[in-house]
Amino acid sequence: MKKSREIILADKAGFCFGVKRAINTAFKAAAGGKVYCLGPLIHNPQEVDRLRREGVETVDDLKTLKPGDSLIIRSHGVPPSVLRQAHDKDLTIIDLTCPFVGKAQRFAERLQIEGYRIVVVGEKKHPEVQSIIGYAGEDAIVVETPADLEGMKAQRRLGVVAQTTQSYSNFSEIVLELLRLSKELKVYNTICNSTTERQNATRSLAGRVDIMFVVGGRNSANTTRLVSLCREEGKPTYHIEVADEIRQEWLQGASKIGVTAGASTPDWVIEGVLKRLREGHTSKQPVR
Amino acid sequence: MKKSREIILADKAGFCFGVKRAINTAFKAAAGGKVYCLGPLIHNPQEVDRLRREGVETVDDLKTLKPGDSLIIRSHGVPPSVLRQAHDKDLTIIDLTCPFVGKAQRFAERLQIEGYRIVVVGEKKHPEVQSIIGYAGEDAIVVETPADLEGMKAQRRLGVVAQTTQSYSNFSEIVLELLRLSKELKVYNTICNSTTERQNATRSLAGRVDIMFVVGGRNSANTTRLVSLCREEGKPTYHIEVADEIRQEWLQGASKIGVTAGASTPDWVIEGVLKRLREGHTSKQPVR
Repeated sequence: MKKSREIILADKAGFCFGVKRAINTAFKAAAGGKVYCLGPLIHNPQEVDRLRREGVETVDDLKTLKPGDSLIIRSHGVPPSVLRQAHDKDLTIIDLTCPFVGKAQRFAERLQIEGYRIVVVGEKKHPEVQSIIGYAGEDAIVVETPADLEGMKAQRRLGVVAQTTQSYSNFSEIVLELLRLSKELKVYNTICNSTTERQNATRSLAGRVDIMFVVGGRNSANTTRLVSLCREEGKPTYHIEVADEIRQEWLQGASKIGVTAGASTPDWVIEGVLKRLREGHTSKQPVR
Repeated sequence: MKKSREIILADKAGFCFGVKRAINTAFKAAAGGKVYCLGPLIHNPQEVDRLRREGVETVDDLKTLKPGDSLIIRSHGVPPSVLRQAHDKDLTIIDLTCPFVGKAQRFAERLQIEGYRIVVVGEKKHPEVQSIIGYAGEDAIVVETPADLEGMKAQRRLGVVAQTTQSYSNFSEIVLELLRLSKELKVYNTICNSTTERQNATRSLAGRVDIMFVVGGRNSANTTRLVSLCREEGKPTYHIEVADEIRQEWLQGASKIGVTAGASTPDWVIEGVLKRLREGHTSKQPVR
C-alpha cells in the first residue's frame, strides 16, 4: 500500500526584498557589459554561478579594477572606507546595499556621533556586520550570543543595533543583559520584518511536520539560523543547497515534510527541491 | 531548656542618602521658624510626628500659604507646575528633591524634547511618579507591571525612565516587553543604587532566616516592595511600623529572625524593633 505524503512550503521562503532588488539590478547592469561584485552578490553558490555566466564577476578586492569599471556593492553593504577606495579609483558604483542594512548603518553612525559605546548584535565575520561596524567606530563590540557578554564591564551609555537577519529571541536576550550593564541604553531594533516573518513561518511549519528541509547556501547565515530554529522545535532537519543532496532514507516514515528557504535562495532552487520531493514519493526510485 | 535565637539586621536597612538629607535639612530649617511641607516629608508617620513637633507642618496644597512662607519640596519632588505655583506665590522654596529623582525628572524632560513617547515604570499614584510625569508630558504612560502593557499598540520610538525605588526584575521585564513594542527604545535605568543594594541585602537575608520583619510606613512604596521580596523568598514576613505591633506568637519556632527597613524608616524606629525582639527572647514575657 502506498503511503500518502504531504510536502508543505513555508510562507515567506526564499528571496527577500533586498536580495530580489540586488539580483534584478545586477542582471540588468550586466546586460550592458561586465560588472564586478565585491564578494559574492548573495550567499548562494548556485545563483552566483548563474550571475557569473551573465557577466557579474565576483572579485575579492578592488586591486585589479580600473577607473570606469562598474562595481556592485552587494546587499550586505560595505564600510565607508571601502566606498572611499572605490570613489578614489573612479569606479562606477552600483550600490545595492539593502535599505534595511543602510538603516542599521545610519543608526550606528548616529549612536557614534551621540557618544554611545556601540554593541552590534550579530556574527563578527559576516560582511553585513563588518559594514555596520564601519559606521559604528573602532571600539564597537560585536556580540553573537549572551555568553559573549560574560566579564564585560558596565558602561554608562550603550547603543545597540542588530544585524538585520538576527533572531529576535537572541537579540532580546542580549539586550536584557546590556540593560544590566548600563545606566542608559539606546536600542535600534534593526532586525528586518522579512527575517522575523520568515523565522516565525518556519517555526510554525516545523511544529506541524515530521521532518524539515532548509534550502540555501551553507555560507548563508540567515539560512543556517532557520536550521537552528527547526532543530529547536525538535524536528529532524536537513540543510541542503540543491535537490540532488536529498537522500531517500531521510524520507522514511515521514508523512508530512516541511520546506523552507533562506533570504538568498532563488525560487528555481526551491522549485527543484519541491519537485524532487514530490517525485520521491510518486516514484519508488532512490533519489540518487 | 531555653532556645537560642538570633536577630539579624539587613545591610542597608533604613534611611537612604536622599531621605537623610531631607530630614536633616528640614530640622535645621524648622529651627529658624515654622516651615511647611507639601505632603508628608517622608512616608513614615512616626517620623512625620516628630517633625511636626519640631515645626515642620504638612500641608495638602499651597492655598493657605502666604508670601514669604517657607515651603519644603520633599524628596519625591513635584511637577514643574507646582514649582511655578510656589514661585508665583512668592514662597521661599527649600527644594529637597532627592538628586536621583531629579535625574529621572531631567531624563524624562530630555526624552520629551527628543520626541519619544515616554513610559514611566512605577506606581501611578506615587508622588515621585507624579513629579516625573510632570516632566515627561501629558501623553506619558505609567506602567506598574508587565500586565499593564497588554493591548498596548506598538510605537516607533519609546523612552523609558523608572521610579527610583522600583525593583530591577519588574523594571527589566517591562523593558523587555517595550523592546517588542518599538523599533527604537531609549532606556534610562534610574533605579537608585541604594534601592538595589537594599533589595539585594534584604533578599539575601530572607534566604537564610526563619521569619522576616520589614519595618516602615505602610504608606511607603519601597518598604512594601521589601515585603514582597521577602515573601517571594518563601519566608513568613511581617510588615510593622513600630515595635509595639510585634506579637509573641509570630516568634514561635523561629531561631533566626531577619529585620530590614525601608528608605524612609528612621534608625530610632529600627532600634526599637531590634530591642523588642532581643527582649522577646531573653524575657519570657509575652511581647504585649
